[in-house]
Amino acid sequence: MYKFLKVAVVMCLFILFLGAQFGFRQVHADAEINIKEKKEKKEKISSKSEKSEKRDATAEIKDTKTEQKTATPKEEKKEIVKQEKPEEKAEPPVSEKQEEKHAPVVKEDAADTHPKDARTIQQIISELTGEKIGPDNSGDVYHLGLTATYTPPKELLPGEGKFGKLFSFLPLMRWYDPDHYYTPNQAIGGEFTHGECLMCHTIQTPGIVAQWKKSKHAAVEQVVGCDKCHGNNHQQLYMPSWQHCGECHPEQKEGHRGGAMASHTYAFHVSTIEAPWQIAKPAAEVTACATCHGIAENRCDGCHTRHDFSLAEARKPNNCGICHTGLDHYEYEMYRESYHGMIYESEQHTWDWTKPMKPENYKTPTCAYCHMRDGEHNAQKFSTVNSHMGTSLVDRGAPKYKEARQSWINTCKGCHSPRFAADQLEAMDEAIKVSFTKWREAMKIVVDLYNDGMLDPMPQDLAPDYAGHYTFSLLGGEGRMYNVSDIERTAFEMLVYITNAVYKAMAHGAMYGATYGKGAFLQDRWLIQVKAEASKLRRIKALEEKVGIKHKAYDFWKHGEYTDLLLGWKRKPGDVDKAACKHEGADCLVE
Amino acid sequence: MYKFLKVAVVMCLFILFLGAQFGFRQVHADAEINIKEKKEKKEKISSKSEKSEKRDATAEIKDTKTEQKTATPKEEKKEIVKQEKPEEKAEPPVSEKQEEKHAPVVKEDAADTHPKDARTIQQIISELTGEKIGPDNSGDVYHLGLTATYTPPKELLPGEGKFGKLFSFLPLMRWYDPDHYYTPNQAIGGEFTHGECLMCHTIQTPGIVAQWKKSKHAAVEQVVGCDKCHGNNHQQLYMPSWQHCGECHPEQKEGHRGGAMASHTYAFHVSTIEAPWQIAKPAAEVTACATCHGIAENRCDGCHTRHDFSLAEARKPNNCGICHTGLDHYEYEMYRESYHGMIYESEQHTWDWTKPMKPENYKTPTCAYCHMRDGEHNAQKFSTVNSHMGTSLVDRGAPKYKEARQSWINTCKGCHSPRFAADQLEAMDEAIKVSFTKWREAMKIVVDLYNDGMLDPMPQDLAPDYAGHYTFSLLGGEGRMYNVSDIERTAFEMLVYITNAVYKAMAHGAMYGATYGKGAFLQDRWLIQVKAEASKLRRIKALEEKVGIKHKAYDFWKHGEYTDLLLGWKRKPGDVDKAACKHEGADCLVE
Amino acid sequence: MYKFLKVAVVMCLFILFLGAQFGFRQVHADAEINIKEKKEKKEKISSKSEKSEKRDATAEIKDTKTEQKTATPKEEKKEIVKQEKPEEKAEPPVSEKQEEKHAPVVKEDAADTHPKDARTIQQIISELTGEKIGPDNSGDVYHLGLTATYTPPKELLPGEGKFGKLFSFLPLMRWYDPDHYYTPNQAIGGEFTHGECLMCHTIQTPGIVAQWKKSKHAAVEQVVGCDKCHGNNHQQLYMPSWQHCGECHPEQKEGHRGGAMASHTYAFHVSTIEAPWQIAKPAAEVTACATCHGIAENRCDGCHTRHDFSLAEARKPNNCGICHTGLDHYEYEMYRESYHGMIYESEQHTWDWTKPMKPENYKTPTCAYCHMRDGEHNAQKFSTVNSHMGTSLVDRGAPKYKEARQSWINTCKGCHSPRFAADQLEAMDEAIKVSFTKWREAMKIVVDLYNDGMLDPMPQDLAPDYAGHYTFSLLGGEGRMYNVSDIERTAFEMLVYITNAVYKAMAHGAMYGATYGKGAFLQDRWLIQVKAEASKLRRIKALEEKVGIKHKAYDFWKHGEYTDLLLGWKRKPGDVDKAACKHEGADCLVE
Repeated sequence: MYKFLKVAVVMCLFILFLGAQFGFRQVHADAEINIKEKKEKKEKISSKSEKSEKRDATAEIKDTKTEQKTATPKEEKKEIVKQEKPEEKAEPPVSEKQEEKHAPVVKEDAADTHPKDARTIQQIISELTGEKIGPDNSGDVYHLGLTATYTPPKELLPGEGKFGKLFSFLPLMRWYDPDHYYTPNQAIGGEFTHGECLMCHTIQTPGIVAQWKKSKHAAVEQVVGCDKCHGNNHQQLYMPSWQHCGECHPEQKEGHRGGAMASHTYAFHVSTIEAPWQIAKPAAEVTACATCHGIAENRCDGCHTRHDFSLAEARKPNNCGICHTGLDHYEYEMYRESYHGMIYESEQHTWDWTKPMKPENYKTPTCAYCHMRDGEHNAQKFSTVNSHMGTSLVDRGAPKYKEARQSWINTCKGCHSPRFAADQLEAMDEAIKVSFTKWREAMKIVVDLYNDGMLDPMPQDLAPDYAGHYTFSLLGGEGRMYNVSDIERTAFEMLVYITNAVYKAMAHGAMYGATYGKGAFLQDRWLIQVKAEASKLRRIKALEEKVGIKHKAYDFWKHGEYTDLLLGWKRKPGDVDKAACKHEGADCLVE
Repeated sequence: MYKFLKVAVVMCLFILFLGAQFGFRQVHADAEINIKEKKEKKEKISSKSEKSEKRDATAEIKDTKTEQKTATPKEEKKEIVKQEKPEEKAEPPVSEKQEEKHAPVVKEDAADTHPKDARTIQQIISELTGEKIGPDNSGDVYHLGLTATYTPPKELLPGEGKFGKLFSFLPLMRWYDPDHYYTPNQAIGGEFTHGECLMCHTIQTPGIVAQWKKSKHAAVEQVVGCDKCHGNNHQQLYMPSWQHCGECHPEQKEGHRGGAMASHTYAFHVSTIEAPWQIAKPAAEVTACATCHGIAENRCDGCHTRHDFSLAEARKPNNCGICHTGLDHYEYEMYRESYHGMIYESEQHTWDWTKPMKPENYKTPTCAYCHMRDGEHNAQKFSTVNSHMGTSLVDRGAPKYKEARQSWINTCKGCHSPRFAADQLEAMDEAIKVSFTKWREAMKIVVDLYNDGMLDPMPQDLAPDYAGHYTFSLLGGEGRMYNVSDIERTAFEMLVYITNAVYKAMAHGAMYGATYGKGAFLQDRWLIQVKAEASKLRRIKALEEKVGIKHKAYDFWKHGEYTDLLLGWKRKPGDVDKAACKHEGADCLVE
Repeated sequence: MYKFLKVAVVMCLFILFLGAQFGFRQVHADAEINIKEKKEKKEKISSKSEKSEKRDATAEIKDTKTEQKTATPKEEKKEIVKQEKPEEKAEPPVSEKQEEKHAPVVKEDAADTHPKDARTIQQIISELTGEKIGPDNSGDVYHLGLTATYTPPKELLPGEGKFGKLFSFLPLMRWYDPDHYYTPNQAIGGEFTHGECLMCHTIQTPGIVAQWKKSKHAAVEQVVGCDKCHGNNHQQLYMPSWQHCGECHPEQKEGHRGGAMASHTYAFHVSTIEAPWQIAKPAAEVTACATCHGIAENRCDGCHTRHDFSLAEARKPNNCGICHTGLDHYEYEMYRESYHGMIYESEQHTWDWTKPMKPENYKTPTCAYCHMRDGEHNAQKFSTVNSHMGTSLVDRGAPKYKEARQSWINTCKGCHSPRFAADQLEAMDEAIKVSFTKWREAMKIVVDLYNDGMLDPMPQDLAPDYAGHYTFSLLGGEGRMYNVSDIERTAFEMLVYITNAVYKAMAHGAMYGATYGKGAFLQDRWLIQVKAEASKLRRIKALEEKVGIKHKAYDFWKHGEYTDLLLGWKRKPGDVDKAACKHEGADCLVE
């Protein structure tokens, strides 16, 4: 905090500057360069031999980021990019035609005197504080963080699937979708046996060797060694995906691949290929989305962490909690808050976790106990209904769910009477129902504002969504929460964060969480804030009408250093043809 | 999230609809039906034999919710309800006389052009999206959750006590207040010995049998078997309350029953009978309140969870944390954040929890160590002063608390010097004091707004409180936080959530929590938001006065799908006679 | 909550009172008395013998707060204070000259009709509710907490260093900075051997004796007994600081003292002496700041808690988490959310914590594993760059950091390939970069408002900062977050809380935390709120200009019961001469 003090001495300069007025339409060419650095799309491998060949042909991605030894395709692209750069700066980030179509005609007015200045905030602050403007690769610390623009990453991996040309991944992605993105390190050549691997890696990576030695893979007669999962040729090493593990564990593989949409089976697919909502934001910002969604679909060591791949570990809730946590999927927290989770925490060290997950072996259930009964690896099998993580409403007591609910009640029967379990389910149903009434009450208020043109801003005054359109996020578009009016965001949170939390809390016995914690009482606050904001928007509008001001949404809603990075601005009109969409909810690209 | 995409194709329809204006005065007759499904009040049982007889006479509550095998009293009530339904729809939810009395006279004005439409949001969205309107018991998923109204629960249990006729519970309540609400399952008849119970239940509910076998109940010479706590007649089974456990554990029972108001002894009582603030909301939304308050007063297995009833478990903080957590009672979090709690977590698995809770046996104390010294089951005995969970201010250093504080200091003496403990107490006193100055600063601002009639909305423009009155929630009424103006809510949170958090943090050694976490710095934010909101409300009002607009609070503050479910709307004027109130703080019913 | 009900009966009185208007300029003389109770500054001790002598001469600080047995220096000061009291009440809390210089000239206007009343909120509420006004040392409970003013603390310790005369500490500070503040208890005299200590303290403080007996201090041949660390003379006992521990542990001491600014070595120093931002608030409110900063610099038992001083304990993350937690330093949470932390929690009870922290001994690293490699006690040695807890931007991939980053990559090599670790570092770099673009976008909006004079309030309409100046907190001043406009606060949180959280999350592998939890998506919300607030401020201003209202910030921004306690009001102009400042970022006192 004390770094703020540094510029105190130039504060007087700043105050003199008080009359200046600025603009902020700053083109971030650097960031745009990278998003366009597309490599040729790699085909999905179907066998290891094909894969190895492909890898030989693929340009190596180096460890160091400052050096760029390998030649051609990347550097060629860089040239192209450099040529494009001036044009990009000259062009507006979205077609003028498109903007014109949506922009309302507004008269010059008192409300329209928003300050304009050609300089960026970096330039202004630089003049005031004497801090130079980055990037210069110097490693200097920018005290206010306002003058630096930062060196962009050297390389990005291309997106896959029909939306692939729109987005990229950071290199980290090679680990989370190894079948598509991983390329072996070329630094060390040669073919090695398992024993030879161990010799070196006991020195190089002693941790994973030690873990492997404790694993069942090391204890079985025909040892499952390093080469079994990674290959023998060090320059053609591979990172094992579910396909490799499945060779020896076919039943588990079948379960893992047996899910439908909304299961682990399609976790990465749905987030990037079918309905790529997450890629609407800069790649660096959605690494976490891609990480969890990637691990869940592509790898087995998200739950059975390497290299001991312990069954006991996967029986405990912690590894599930890495992904199933927070805001729109509070499964982990709610379990931990419940009696089950509390007893797990206080007593689990006294339990024998090598035993099968049966009621006589564990005082309380864990995630796997209920959702992967008897080791079933398709957790979706025990679903009653896919309610989109609680954001769709469904009458859960309807006859068609009777059997699936009875199956849940039977799971509780290890310790609880069927009536107790049924009462819990009903309490969950009711709590969700009430939560939806609250959300609908808020939505009515927001939809009224939309219909009256009183959202501030209206959709057309925001940056376009990832499909390049200007839509009302709560009804038509994509459920955006990063580029909307404040009241839309609050309404969004009432549904996706809180109704969801109420559902997850009641489903997992976290009574507190359903009410006080992240539940009903928090939704009350959001509802009140929706009303307070709606009231102010209407009162201000009424005043403006009375005195003859025609308010136009300020430019900062549409442009700004971050907002200009959004995918919508990078779209050419026509990239997406919504009518051609075959998959539920997707905005499909024109073929 | 991708479900939002589905309705993209109908978005164009929606935009055409932009001129439409809606209303939202939607009568939720379905929900109201259930709240009126009152069964005859059951008398509090005083002995097991009486209880069994009563249970025979009581209509069975079935496991399944779709079937309704048992006859008469319930079905009769359903008939009555059906007849009442049309009338309810015709009547306004509150007497017009009462509304008139409070509603300010407002001229037609620019601010009063709030859009009206006879249709509900369900109807509008249904037309736009083609989603049918529920409920139809079909189990269909409603993608936006906006068109469904849901099948209401089949049955509710009647409330108890003088406010009983105003509220109901979900059936889940039978487990948390078994003496009042539990009725045995009639499916299996016959009388069984403990051994016979075990034979069946080793198959039916193996978990609780396994736990019981590890318990002391199974190890003592005269085994405390199933029948001892549940009876022998399967159609007259009972769920044991403190009364049953107390037969063998009289000392613990005495402690548990020895508390005054604000103790476990009255936990359920106070929340539902004496001052039923929680029932102001729909039953489904306050299940958690009722659960914790119910368990704490009525049962012993909230802390000694079944069926091992382990002493070690109750010595650990986790079971306390089920209820003593979050927002208005941060005891658990603050303990866990402290050195004591951190050391507990990292080392507890190495401690011998069968040992008495003495300083020589445990490196750090737990909840029970300090609040249930030497096994005293009346935790209130160690209170210094009941400050209503920190929401009342008291000069804790006053001479009259010297002895009680010295008793706390002595508890710390196992490891700390008396001066250290006294310094900690003083630091707590001072932190609470400062926190109250911040709250009072905010309250002054809110009270000024109230006095100037500038709250938006003023109390009379909100739904009535549970007593049917329109009162300023922060001073007179009930401390509502779900049906108030935004600024009242923020002020409420500054006191009940944050002053409370500061108190609990300092009391439990969570220095961080007192300041940064949920403490002083968070209260700073709330104070600033109170000021920012007050400033806007005053500036907008000044503008309206200048241009001759008389603002009337918008209807959405008073009515909406959720707001119309609130208890205040269900009150008949005169139900409560505040003058007849004998108990502190209660709004008493007319006899 | 039910305490709110009590005053229901006087509510009618209150409603009658609706026309009354109040003021709030309340002088809190009591609190100001104590802040001026300065004791003579004690010199830093350099040897134990000097220390003992000094202690003899120092007035004892008593255990009890109601009695004041020892004589002279304190009582003399009390007399002075009493004489000063009337004068203080007469004087305004800040020089009129200074206020005049900053206050804008504002015409009488519609917006300026803010209600004034000579009475405090205590007086008003007292009249309404019949609650008497405190303090009276009676221990009475004030139900609304609005009428009480509380008895202030009896004594405060003087601040140290060049800012010392500006602030004080609560007596608790003697434990956290024992070399400066601790004075031994005089109640028990005599010289004792270790064995004699044990005899008494096995009864007096059995916990610490039991812990000590388990410690290595008790197991070595030359027992490190009580007297070794506390001395033999009971009236000259001392609390050991790092100086004492360092006598036997010179290597650890060297590490602990070897850090530069932003290390444990200067933790207390920087928060109170060099740049005393924390003391801008009342002493009681920043006890937590002083506690963590104090322990980290002055004592060893913050990590090696007494009296077992276990190595195993310090190897676990919990003790680090006491301080390295929350809001502006989310290290602990982010570790716990990561795979490393999750596996730590679920498996740590099976690990042998007496073993050295090597990859072959632990499946996952802990704080100490990475930041105190091979037991190095200067954690700063492994820093790449001091970015002020992530609040300064730096191009982390610059060549100058290559070596330090390689050192981190080597730490991961126990289990991970260098390329994996490098990819993680790059993903962190990129996430921080994007987070800064979002903050700069917000800052541009706030700076524009500042330049246009549209912040509500502008800096001159707030209480002065701790240096007595009226500065824009986000650029020049001090990064205040307790006495600023709402939009400044939100922008502040976007940087200090969220950019920081993104950094800490990515650094510790908490992918979720970087995005959803406390990261990017939360920053989206803050950005939207900044825009929504900016839009409202501009629209209201445009309306006011149109109708000829000149808005003046309301008084409640500058004064209020809490705000009047802030240090800025206690400054005399000229106390600080910014030009004389030699240390980075400090506001230096005039010599």
